[in-house]
Amino acid sequence: MASPEFLSLEQSLEENLPPADLSNVRRILFGRETRKLDLPPSALVAASQRDFELLAFAFEASKEQLRPARPVRVGLVQNRIRLPPDAPVSEQVGALHGRIVEILEVAAQCGVNIVCFQEAWTMPFAFCTREKLPWTEFAESAEDGPTTRLCQKLAKTHNMVVVSPILERDEAHGDVLWNTAVVISNSGAVLGKTRKNHIPRVGDFNEATYYMESTLGHPVFQTSFGRIAVNICYGRHHPLNWLMYSLNGAEIIFNPSATIGELSEALWPIEARNAAIANHCFTCAINRVGVEHFPREFTSGDGKPGRYAGAACVPGIGWASAGLGEGQALWEQEGERVLPQGCLGRSREPPPVPALARTSPMRCPGLLWVSEAHCDFGYFYGSSYVSAPDGRRTPGLSRTRDGLLVAQLDLNLCRQMGDLWNFKMTGRYAMYAEELAKASQPDYRPHVIKE
Amino acid sequence: MASPEFLSLEQSLEENLPPADLSNVRRILFGRETRKLDLPPSALVAASQRDFELLAFAFEASKEQLRPARPVRVGLVQNRIRLPPDAPVSEQVGALHGRIVEILEVAAQCGVNIVCFQEAWTMPFAFCTREKLPWTEFAESAEDGPTTRLCQKLAKTHNMVVVSPILERDEAHGDVLWNTAVVISNSGAVLGKTRKNHIPRVGDFNEATYYMESTLGHPVFQTSFGRIAVNICYGRHHPLNWLMYSLNGAEIIFNPSATIGELSEALWPIEARNAAIANHCFTCAINRVGVEHFPREFTSGDGKPGRYAGAACVPGIGWASAGLGEGQALWEQEGERVLPQGCLGRSREPPPVPALARTSPMRCPGLLWVSEAHCDFGYFYGSSYVSAPDGRRTPGLSRTRDGLLVAQLDLNLCRQMGDLWNFKMTGRYAMYAEELAKASQPDYRPHVIKE
Repeated sequence: MASPEFLSLEQSLEENLPPADLSNVRRILFGRETRKLDLPPSALVAASQRDFELLAFAFEASKEQLRPARPVRVGLVQNRIRLPPDAPVSEQVGALHGRIVEILEVAAQCGVNIVCFQEAWTMPFAFCTREKLPWTEFAESAEDGPTTRLCQKLAKTHNMVVVSPILERDEAHGDVLWNTAVVISNSGAVLGKTRKNHIPRVGDFNEATYYMESTLGHPVFQTSFGRIAVNICYGRHHPLNWLMYSLNGAEIIFNPSATIGELSEALWPIEARNAAIANHCFTCAINRVGVEHFPREFTSGDGKPGRYAGAACVPGIGWASAGLGEGQALWEQEGERVLPQGCLGRSREPPPVPALARTSPMRCPGLLWVSEAHCDFGYFYGSSYVSAPDGRRTPGLSRTRDGLLVAQLDLNLCRQMGDLWNFKMTGRYAMYAEELAKASQPDYRPHVIKE
Repeated sequence: MASPEFLSLEQSLEENLPPADLSNVRRILFGRETRKLDLPPSALVAASQRDFELLAFAFEASKEQLRPARPVRVGLVQNRIRLPPDAPVSEQVGALHGRIVEILEVAAQCGVNIVCFQEAWTMPFAFCTREKLPWTEFAESAEDGPTTRLCQKLAKTHNMVVVSPILERDEAHGDVLWNTAVVISNSGAVLGKTRKNHIPRVGDFNEATYYMESTLGHPVFQTSFGRIAVNICYGRHHPLNWLMYSLNGAEIIFNPSATIGELSEALWPIEARNAAIANHCFTCAINRVGVEHFPREFTSGDGKPGRYAGAACVPGIGWASAGLGEGQALWEQEGERVLPQGCLGRSREPPPVPALARTSPMRCPGLLWVSEAHCDFGYFYGSSYVSAPDGRRTPGLSRTRDGLLVAQLDLNLCRQMGDLWNFKMTGRYAMYAEELAKASQPDYRPHVIKE
């Protein structure tokens, strides 16, 4: 079960393994130890007051004679939505804007030079619903929408490059939608935009209903602090996508994402890290947190029956609930609580009596059986992390809380690892260009040897 | 320290984590639980008698209406060399042949259909030395060398496809050498051969001194049990290499390797597993075990000083040693022991007194300082494993022992995962063929956006 209550893998290892084992396990899992970075106490206090996790690490490189070290501090922000998806659109956006403003104040105290938010950060990840209104109202102009204007102001104030992944409304091209990341220079100018190159068609990721694959190629942005690129979400499953950003010179590739437990959690530590290794660059994987409850039911296309829950109203005690699936609000507390009606409907047939109802000492005068499989996307498990070109990685932010991960990267490590491992030199790209061109032809016959 | 004495990551987690945490940690690290496979007790007894580890797991797929399940059992063999590298060539090869014969008898009892050995399995991994004789004498004809003939016999006897990675002497093309995998059908016929596509130039991997990149492309072999390909060692760092085997239809890609602790152990769990995910196929990563001591010193090109050891001859007690690096035989025991002269030379300057010499209650009447950094390649850490297209993986074989890993794979899972995740459909290969062709041109200008 990809349940939210398991806080973090790293913490479990730290608490349970004997020191000698911990050091070996860490080495095998995460590579050579990454140094913890000291932060100003005021930043730690502010993060605590504002209820988000704050972690910081540093990746060093070897000293060179001709190039000074090139330390740059990146900030990865992961967060929950602030208001439920059925709140007015403008209030939802405003609440998320406010949250980012307060997190960025702390990022600035931590000396962050480049910050990146999660995919479609101004909205709930509503593409699962396949409904258009009100969700398409979250789309904005990349050049001068309210979110870009806010980010410009923040960039200038904090002397910080801001990578702002939004749902874009492209008025210059027939009002179409794109999944876009706007890159804003620390000067406050919009440096440019880049778009999602690969669009998922899997489970509830019904994004192909909303927007198409990018036609902008693989741009890399030369910022004051280093060359960066943005590989949005599902693009992380495509090694060629990472490769082209890297061939265009990216030293840091951000991967703003929105992905859920059962589907991808075992893939999450693998893909962005593999990309850092394979491309001699840093990668920054960012995922949102929590469950987002939508007002109307939808289907997941996975053939599974709805998840059933027993909710018993016990006079004088309140609601007791049992058997709810992962991340459901109802499960999180017992007490006087009104079930959100849109999300919970009566099931067509009675399910097996769930465990709590069977074992609970409370009387159950009336069980209300509900099916609510279809009003949330699943549990977004956070776990944002940074990988280095030498295979090291930071621990992840938690699976459950808003967080800011600060990582100081010496960008000299990219070329140093390239010179050590030589993947670009030994990559034989011309051969692969030919092979891929052939393999893309309609009459391609795979190279198969038979007896 | 990538030391040999840490047996396995999986075992440490199993022994130390509380059950609830273990289940969450395993889920995040390894994906959904992989079923253990029951083996005949006679096989377990034989493996124990022959002193190798035997593990077995099964990956199931969903039932389909039109295709029956396609279970195939693969066997991954990891092993130490049997005789020291300064033993006569023919004896070394003979000893390894004998070892494989006895391991394959057990594999046959376990119902293995396709077996793969480690890279250059008939020899020590001597390319670190950059010497030619006697190492090039291990090279054989892929078509009718003694190793191929042995494998043909074994394949026919056991009705098993054999993947045999050897150093190939190509007499038809000017006696050149290749790093080759010979694929032998369960009929006993040589189905064909495939060669290493990417040759490392890193650390002591001086293989570019011995052989060149394959010109055979990315062949896939249609066997009686499924379509297989072989991505040899360093090729696993190149995502395009995996991709082309997959585009040619490989359902299982073997990755016979020889790789060492400090360099690659943190990358090992990432790369083959990422390839299984990205390409909707099974991948089988195989690494050799142990330290191989060569008779003459060589350099590592890493600028590090030699590792120093204090060895004290204490009359009546024997040799006491301290400060030796990882995997060194001397460290493993104290007692009457002659230092192998070729491997141990006096250091030029005295190193700091190592810990044991300082704390040992034994008198140290005379310390012999030795430097032996340059007569071994490092510790080959085994840890062979299988990854599935849904991101699951088996535990690894141990870091220290010979082993046979049996995995039953339902090959239907490949297409099922392709249909779920759609990476091939969303891969945009024609676009990448163009972009790579451009990026391979001498006058390519990276796509960089500046303010």
